[in-house]
Amino acid sequence: MNCKICGNEAIFKLKNHNLKLCEEDFKVFLDRQFRRAVKEGKMFNREGTILIAVSGGKDSLLCWHLINKLAYKSEGVFLDLGIEGFSKASEEKISNFAKERGLKFQILKIEELAGLDIKTMLKKKRFCSVCGMIKRYWLNRYAYENGFNVIATGHNLDDESATLLGNILHWQLGYIKRQSPSLSSFGSKLVSRVKPLYKMNEYEIRTYADLEKIDYLNDDCPFKKGNTQDIYKEALNLIESYSPGTKNSFLFQFLDKKGALFGEEGKLDLRECSRCGMLTTQEVCAYCKLIEKENNRYEFQKK
Amino acid sequence: MNCKICGNEAIFKLKNHNLKLCEEDFKVFLDRQFRRAVKEGKMFNREGTILIAVSGGKDSLLCWHLINKLAYKSEGVFLDLGIEGFSKASEEKISNFAKERGLKFQILKIEELAGLDIKTMLKKKRFCSVCGMIKRYWLNRYAYENGFNVIATGHNLDDESATLLGNILHWQLGYIKRQSPSLSSFGSKLVSRVKPLYKMNEYEIRTYADLEKIDYLNDDCPFKKGNTQDIYKEALNLIESYSPGTKNSFLFQFLDKKGALFGEEGKLDLRECSRCGMLTTQEVCAYCKLIEKENNRYEFQKK
Repeated sequence: MNCKICGNEAIFKLKNHNLKLCEEDFKVFLDRQFRRAVKEGKMFNREGTILIAVSGGKDSLLCWHLINKLAYKSEGVFLDLGIEGFSKASEEKISNFAKERGLKFQILKIEELAGLDIKTMLKKKRFCSVCGMIKRYWLNRYAYENGFNVIATGHNLDDESATLLGNILHWQLGYIKRQSPSLSSFGSKLVSRVKPLYKMNEYEIRTYADLEKIDYLNDDCPFKKGNTQDIYKEALNLIESYSPGTKNSFLFQFLDKKGALFGEEGKLDLRECSRCGMLTTQEVCAYCKLIEKENNRYEFQKK
Repeated sequence: MNCKICGNEAIFKLKNHNLKLCEEDFKVFLDRQFRRAVKEGKMFNREGTILIAVSGGKDSLLCWHLINKLAYKSEGVFLDLGIEGFSKASEEKISNFAKERGLKFQILKIEELAGLDIKTMLKKKRFCSVCGMIKRYWLNRYAYENGFNVIATGHNLDDESATLLGNILHWQLGYIKRQSPSLSSFGSKLVSRVKPLYKMNEYEIRTYADLEKIDYLNDDCPFKKGNTQDIYKEALNLIESYSPGTKNSFLFQFLDKKGALFGEEGKLDLRECSRCGMLTTQEVCAYCKLIEKENNRYEFQKK
């Protein structure tokens, strides 16, 4: 098996690209995917500091690693949900990663900030989506309040194609039209969100992170098991195993043709939330509604 | 477990409809699904005779059974591909079914009609799609030459949602726009094709066929294993097992919103094939091209 680029012995087989590569050319290939994603999506430039949401897993740490390797200014932020045995381990990985590279990172303790008891919330059926919403809220608010104008996350090809599949299976046209690896800001209170790893799949990211000797947390969140997003990933992996390249083609063709396929995205009618002042399409934002509901429930249980 | 309709003991659990039913109400429910499909799709009426493509499997035989039960005039046609051990068994099931009910059916021997050697063709990689094309061609030609103005097939919810998924994963916009359980005719040479079982899934059809004591062939075509359509079905079944009703919602919402989602279907620019005279969008139709290619290959091998 020879490397398609240099002809030396190949080690990695990227079935989705029908490409065999040696270690060196594997890294070059993925670096190029990363730079292309940044350039095509006009994700960020050398002005200002990029805020990276890090979880301690392979995706977000590789994302930070590559941003740092390309000498962009960056800072990390970790959203600590206080999940026993998991959040502490995550924090440790991030802390070691940042120390080794002399990078700054901040811990946001969500339970304290939101005045929420995560354990009571876990009784909710669809916790993953609620958790995602809380994290997006605080990520954006922290970025806004601290003058960052772009947030990068570690979402990869598997995440993005699974999200697209889920939205299409239920024909969520609003979500379909908005799906993009590069969501531009709506005024200063809604900070841009970008996903520089969206062209790379799990295998590529894990392999690259291992080659770069990144010490990442290998465990999943203990509450994640059986979540719908994972089922969509499993379904796509099944298809991919028979037809390598399906995920790439599914997501990239969609991104290319989205406007032609589904029409242009309508402009969101945003206003300030009457409780917290952040942007929302309604009188009270989804986050504030949730907190109010949770606190009422908590009060009710205490009585 | 009680029947949601009559309150008696329920036997069948239709998870996708969140419905528990007794035997009687199960049949009533599926009969209604069938009649609705026919009515909504303006599939056929009591004028003329419906041509049913039968394979001997549960789907096409139940389809014929229900058409017959509702007293529509119908005739069967079996496309015999000469597949050893499989085609004969299929024919036997159809023959018994038709005899019991005093219905007519015709056997089309594809190898003779097309002058094709199916065994050499099996060396082709994507045989299932080629086989489908040949069958559609002869089905339409037979219907046209014998004065039928509608062809019914046994395609079900699983088939239709898998086809839709495949077309969407590759963003085949032309196919997506044309997908419908009721394809109207383009002039007399392109006969209408309808799928009256498209609202029922495999489980419902198998159960109904068993209750009606239909003696169907349970085997799959020996060349079908690992075909892409089956992989899409497996992927959708995986998702369905976690979120019952996903297939229904995916297909039916698509059919409802297709025009709004993807725009209206453009009119096909059809002409007569210069070889066989049937309708095509090109100078020579895909079927005639295939036959020419196969015959050349065969001649070449003989030399």
